[in-house]
Amino acid sequence: MKTRIARPYLLFLGDAADDLEAKTAIGVLHWRPADCIGQLRVPGCAPRLDLPEMTVTEAAAAGARTLLIGVANRGGIIPGHWSGVLADALAGGLDIASGLHTRLSDITVVKDAAAKHGRAIHEVRHPAGDLQVADGTPRGGRRLLTVGTDCSVGKMYTALALERAFRKRGIDCEFCATGQTGILIAGGGVSVDAVPADFIAGAVEELAPAAPPGHWHIIEGQGSLFHPSYAGVSLGLLHGAQPDTLVLCHEPTRPHMRGLPHQPMPSVEQCIAANTLAAKVVSGKVHVAGIAINTAALGEAEAGRLLAATADEHGLPCVDPVRGGVDAIVDNIRF
Amino acid sequence: MKTRIARPYLLFLGDAADDLEAKTAIGVLHWRPADCIGQLRVPGCAPRLDLPEMTVTEAAAAGARTLLIGVANRGGIIPGHWSGVLADALAGGLDIASGLHTRLSDITVVKDAAAKHGRAIHEVRHPAGDLQVADGTPRGGRRLLTVGTDCSVGKMYTALALERAFRKRGIDCEFCATGQTGILIAGGGVSVDAVPADFIAGAVEELAPAAPPGHWHIIEGQGSLFHPSYAGVSLGLLHGAQPDTLVLCHEPTRPHMRGLPHQPMPSVEQCIAANTLAAKVVSGKVHVAGIAINTAALGEAEAGRLLAATADEHGLPCVDPVRGGVDAIVDNIRF
Repeated sequence: MKTRIARPYLLFLGDAADDLEAKTAIGVLHWRPADCIGQLRVPGCAPRLDLPEMTVTEAAAAGARTLLIGVANRGGIIPGHWSGVLADALAGGLDIASGLHTRLSDITVVKDAAAKHGRAIHEVRHPAGDLQVADGTPRGGRRLLTVGTDCSVGKMYTALALERAFRKRGIDCEFCATGQTGILIAGGGVSVDAVPADFIAGAVEELAPAAPPGHWHIIEGQGSLFHPSYAGVSLGLLHGAQPDTLVLCHEPTRPHMRGLPHQPMPSVEQCIAANTLAAKVVSGKVHVAGIAINTAALGEAEAGRLLAATADEHGLPCVDPVRGGVDAIVDNIRF
Repeated sequence: MKTRIARPYLLFLGDAADDLEAKTAIGVLHWRPADCIGQLRVPGCAPRLDLPEMTVTEAAAAGARTLLIGVANRGGIIPGHWSGVLADALAGGLDIASGLHTRLSDITVVKDAAAKHGRAIHEVRHPAGDLQVADGTPRGGRRLLTVGTDCSVGKMYTALALERAFRKRGIDCEFCATGQTGILIAGGGVSVDAVPADFIAGAVEELAPAAPPGHWHIIEGQGSLFHPSYAGVSLGLLHGAQPDTLVLCHEPTRPHMRGLPHQPMPSVEQCIAANTLAAKVVSGKVHVAGIAINTAALGEAEAGRLLAATADEHGLPCVDPVRGGVDAIVDNIRF
């Protein structure tokens, strides 16, 4: 079930109109600079990364293994004029990885080139392969899961920041990706929102299996137990993760749950209580290590006051991973 | 997304070895006698229903619309020697409905016969069609959901018993099936455990849509919020159902969660609290109307004492739907 993408990458920006459309490539380069050896842009592409520009042939010669489609455009489509470049990449010896909605395997010239040249196509939004039902058996190793008050509040960013901080301290750990961007960054993972419902927790058990005592799986959360569209994904992920440590992620200026104007946001306190209660079904000693708040919408002083007040209210370290890093949370983890 | 199966049915028992293997047919006949006009058995079939024996041709002449495979055999397979009968049924003008694991569309002779004669094949374990993401918007009509302490504790049976009791009182209602057997009984529904995880709640919103004020959707629950393999399905179903009324189903003699020897059973009290808390995300005034206990493993006197003690402990009507019916629960519903 778990995707494994060969690295290093040639980052394909297509004809992205701006940095927002290139955010997948930007994220991969930010979190995995050593995995990125070049960029490929087509006429009309506005953003430019701090990487050498390369053709497919140059990238393959430099050791690239996979062309990674780093574009997140409107509708998640692969426009027809990319097909030639993609087929050339396969002919030149590269695999292709995509998180877009359009299936590469539905584009005849791309599908045929992959078959002819024996290259892999990774469509991380469309999981394939065997599935297993979770059994919830207690397993070895340590697991941290980022959970959220809502969708898109920084669960992936926080997990990656924690991985980086763990590594700086010499702690054996691995980021486990559960969404498309995370999978492209990590070079593997499983898109848990796309597996059949019976297998959500099982997919996460496979993603973060039993490990030696000192090893940490740092698992990217999805959605929120309080989001009426996706809470089933969040609960299955929580049970499959069998976490001993939770970090709650939050965006403090959101007027309502993402995409649902009628749906009020839950409080930080409600989320801590609900996630702790649900985690105890599989992990009796679960511990909330801290709160990560995305304060991008606030000024520096206001952000500082909010972090201090939230820390005080809940008796937990509270940080903005972008502004101040996650060290205060790592300090509070029960290693 | 929602399956709709044409009725009435010819119940196909195949070569079922005993009543347990014929339990799907027995369930359909028990809950929907008016939808069943005949039975078809092949040599070696032990169970016999209280229905006329008919060939495919006789059943079609008598008005049957669908041959329903009423067998739940080991592995959920369709043995090769059924293919001829199934192809004959399609040639004779019947659709086929199956809840088995083997796909009818993978059996060439059956697939070809369906195409040639323009008949439908319903594989209720494998949902197909468009999906929608739930939005959780408050909607009209009333909804009751059966929830459970575990898998296989009587959620479908209780929902069907409630539907029957509602109808006796002249209440406008409809049973909404979320699993294979329920779908075959109801002639429609959606197998929520098989939809991609992002669409669990959305599938249930579609299954039990907005309705007039006096109308009740009585929704079959699945799994348990406390079952580590399937809780994601249960939570998505709960949110999609947006229930104003819950009925908790329980089996009191189970030593551990079904299939998981290491996993302790939750208490009735824990289940009431967790389901109420989760339902409030979408349904602020949710009310637990009663407890349905499967006392099949207990003697009459012991069962009576347990029901009385449980009712007393939780201040709720507590019944065994098989032994005593569900009237006490219906009496406690806030119509």
